Amino acid sequence: MKVAKFGGSSLANGAQIQKVIDIIKSDSNRRIVVVSAPGKRKDTDTKVTDLLIKYCNTVSQGEDITGIQNKIIKRYQAIAGHFGLPDTALEPIVEGITKLATQVFPSRAYQMAAFKAAGENNNAKLIAAIFNHQQIPAEYLDPKTIGLTVTDVPDDAQILPSSYEKLAQTLTQRTKVAVVPGFFGYNTSGEVCTFSRGGSDVTGAILARAVAATEYENFTDVDAIYAANPNIVPNPKKITNLTFREMRELSYAGFSVFHDEALIPAIEGKIPVVVKNTNHPSLPGTLISEHKKINHDDVVAGIASDSGFTGIYIRKYLMNKQVGFTLKLLEILAKLNISYEHMPSGIDDLTIIIRSNQLTPELETQIRAEIESEIHPDDFQIQHNYTMVMIVGEGIQDRVGTMAAATASIAQAGVSIVMVNHGASPVSITFGIRTADADAAVQGLYDTFIAHQPIEIFAEKTF
Amino acid sequence: MKVAKFGGSSLANGAQIQKVIDIIKSDSNRRIVVVSAPGKRKDTDTKVTDLLIKYCNTVSQGEDITGIQNKIIKRYQAIAGHFGLPDTALEPIVEGITKLATQVFPSRAYQMAAFKAAGENNNAKLIAAIFNHQQIPAEYLDPKTIGLTVTDVPDDAQILPSSYEKLAQTLTQRTKVAVVPGFFGYNTSGEVCTFSRGGSDVTGAILARAVAATEYENFTDVDAIYAANPNIVPNPKKITNLTFREMRELSYAGFSVFHDEALIPAIEGKIPVVVKNTNHPSLPGTLISEHKKINHDDVVAGIASDSGFTGIYIRKYLMNKQVGFTLKLLEILAKLNISYEHMPSGIDDLTIIIRSNQLTPELETQIRAEIESEIHPDDFQIQHNYTMVMIVGEGIQDRVGTMAAATASIAQAGVSIVMVNHGASPVSITFGIRTADADAAVQGLYDTFIAHQPIEIFAEKTF
Repeated sequence: MKVAKFGGSSLANGAQIQKVIDIIKSDSNRRIVVVSAPGKRKDTDTKVTDLLIKYCNTVSQGEDITGIQNKIIKRYQAIAGHFGLPDTALEPIVEGITKLATQVFPSRAYQMAAFKAAGENNNAKLIAAIFNHQQIPAEYLDPKTIGLTVTDVPDDAQILPSSYEKLAQTLTQRTKVAVVPGFFGYNTSGEVCTFSRGGSDVTGAILARAVAATEYENFTDVDAIYAANPNIVPNPKKITNLTFREMRELSYAGFSVFHDEALIPAIEGKIPVVVKNTNHPSLPGTLISEHKKINHDDVVAGIASDSGFTGIYIRKYLMNKQVGFTLKLLEILAKLNISYEHMPSGIDDLTIIIRSNQLTPELETQIRAEIESEIHPDDFQIQHNYTMVMIVGEGIQDRVGTMAAATASIAQAGVSIVMVNHGASPVSITFGIRTADADAAVQGLYDTFIAHQPIEIFAEKTF
Repeated sequence: MKVAKFGGSSLANGAQIQKVIDIIKSDSNRRIVVVSAPGKRKDTDTKVTDLLIKYCNTVSQGEDITGIQNKIIKRYQAIAGHFGLPDTALEPIVEGITKLATQVFPSRAYQMAAFKAAGENNNAKLIAAIFNHQQIPAEYLDPKTIGLTVTDVPDDAQILPSSYEKLAQTLTQRTKVAVVPGFFGYNTSGEVCTFSRGGSDVTGAILARAVAATEYENFTDVDAIYAANPNIVPNPKKITNLTFREMRELSYAGFSVFHDEALIPAIEGKIPVVVKNTNHPSLPGTLISEHKKINHDDVVAGIASDSGFTGIYIRKYLMNKQVGFTLKLLEILAKLNISYEHMPSGIDDLTIIIRSNQLTPELETQIRAEIESEIHPDDFQIQHNYTMVMIVGEGIQDRVGTMAAATASIAQAGVSIVMVNHGASPVSITFGIRTADADAAVQGLYDTFIAHQPIEIFAEKTF
């Protein structure tokens, strides 16, 4: 049995959905279909999820909802029209979207979750109806019906491990194709809670794990996962195979093709994941699985980069002698609910790299005050605009010269390295680079490790 | 005013002490002399401090002390004999060493501190007597008399900042050369507490800061600080100038010429430190000061290495999502009184590098148990036999290509890098290397950065 998840661009209009229908028809193993909300039809379009957020805000502010409500309903009407569905098929969708405005929720956060989830939920109802209309016996399944129960965090829920047994029971031995909305589940009180944004991938992975699928197919609008961001490196190579560990590091550091949290259920269940293009389903795409054949000429699988980091630098003499020093520092950050990404520490120096979006000017002032009063540093600086550039590949750690080739590539690009994190993960090395230099560093690393261009910087050179 | 500290080898016998006398006579600014205990006269000799430790243990075990007591006294007698001192000059020394056996101490730790400190204390009395005998007006000054008050840790004390004012009062405007024993002070109850081993350097630095000395001269048995360990790299270059920051990093990572804690008072007081050889006092030695002229061809000042590290590797999916994850881990370590040196952390992986000497098999079992039960890791390994190899130099961070040259050198030596810590300190980069490979890495780095041999590894090579 295969689970196939389709992203927003694959479901944006009738023409795209026709491709989905053809894909489902072409392989009778595709028994479970997970759908996103309708995405953009063209660059200037608005995703249904974003319309729903606006709808929710309009309701909250007590303003006139007619315009935004109709805009959303029209998106579903347009799709139904393309397939010539009877009006009755649209009724539950129109009703679902309309009644949101008058529903009562335990809090604003649950309200927003329910509005956002409506994008996927109504799309699943519509797709099931279209499938049936097109002679694919299908049924819409509410996450509540199948037992997709999640933690009680309205906008960042996680699956409750106890759900898997129920999901397995409800999803196996069905005769019809199951169409399940992605992105959300229900807490134990029956309220909608969503995964973090892009979380339809997560739903697909959970269902694939629950039914022990032979494959989890993730249909999107790219032919494969690329070895680098096409906005930085022109025409990057496609990746054929990735291990779970490689994919996890890449998606964490800016590879947005596949939601990083979606990998966990796949890893736990050892379910192979295939990223494919709805528009070119015959292409092999990228296979992500537990193991891959290591090609020693391709030690680096991909190069990722992610901007928006801030470094908190602290110097204090004899810092290293205090067993609880870092502890005290992390307590300050934990109290302010700030998580850190990297923390290179020396004898008297410590740099904490955090995501800048966790900071506000007020919070920065508070961090300064707390550190000054609790830690009494000899030197203390907060530096913004760092980008983390990461090379990822199985066996990177033990290959002599990987670091040398990486740093030579960055040097050849004329870029200095502010931070290195190597030794945490066996499959990645992270370089802290000033954001202005980051793209040059990515291109340099790509040229060396993916395009295999010779590095000549140290030829006959002394240092 | 200069403070001159002499190490154990400079005071091991009469011939060596004659050199010290000549040094003091040659510069009338040398007003404060800090002395170690007599060191080894030849390789097979035993340092007086080690004899005193044995003496203390013999007393504790209620065994016959005559032999060991005499052995210690004879070391001082031999020196006194060399200079033809009258017997009366030795009396306070013999009495001081003898009465230790019957003195009562608050605990075993204070007893050991007092025994060990007796090496320096009696040597100071003797040197003062010899100076006077040789027409250098001098006086022995007990750390208690001058107000060298320290924290109440018998074997790892630190100066109380409040001491400085008293020290300044008692040490300035003296007409005679002050001879002060190194290595120890007194707690506020009047008990002897020592600095950590080799702590005479610390005493010298404290006194230099207290009197705002123009220079703190540290006399030892090497011509200068070398750019690498001569046991690893044959005939390494001498270092002419170091900044405080550079020296601190180097001494932390295996450079044993100068005690790393001794730098703190010098840094605080901005007192230039000169490391010189008692046997070749006309050589310039190594000057350590706040600033130095940066030579852009010599971006690395020195290469250090220190073995005996252990890595604790933990993998746990979504680790990064828990704000308090590292906190919990550090709490476990702090509870077991284990400090860490480096902590590279990735998305799901964390490696904690600690000094192996903090571990016992029991403690390792306890760490395992605590981490298993508190953290529930997906993977968990303890790996021994790591060495930290460090390159140190002002401006290392901003120089494009430093990392590249460093890692190329290590690769050229056929060594793979397990960990990199770069970004904590602006003047150093640390590489975690398997101990078996460490010397090769040091030699490779030396060849590149100190000997300026060309690196050719990436010439015409693709990766």
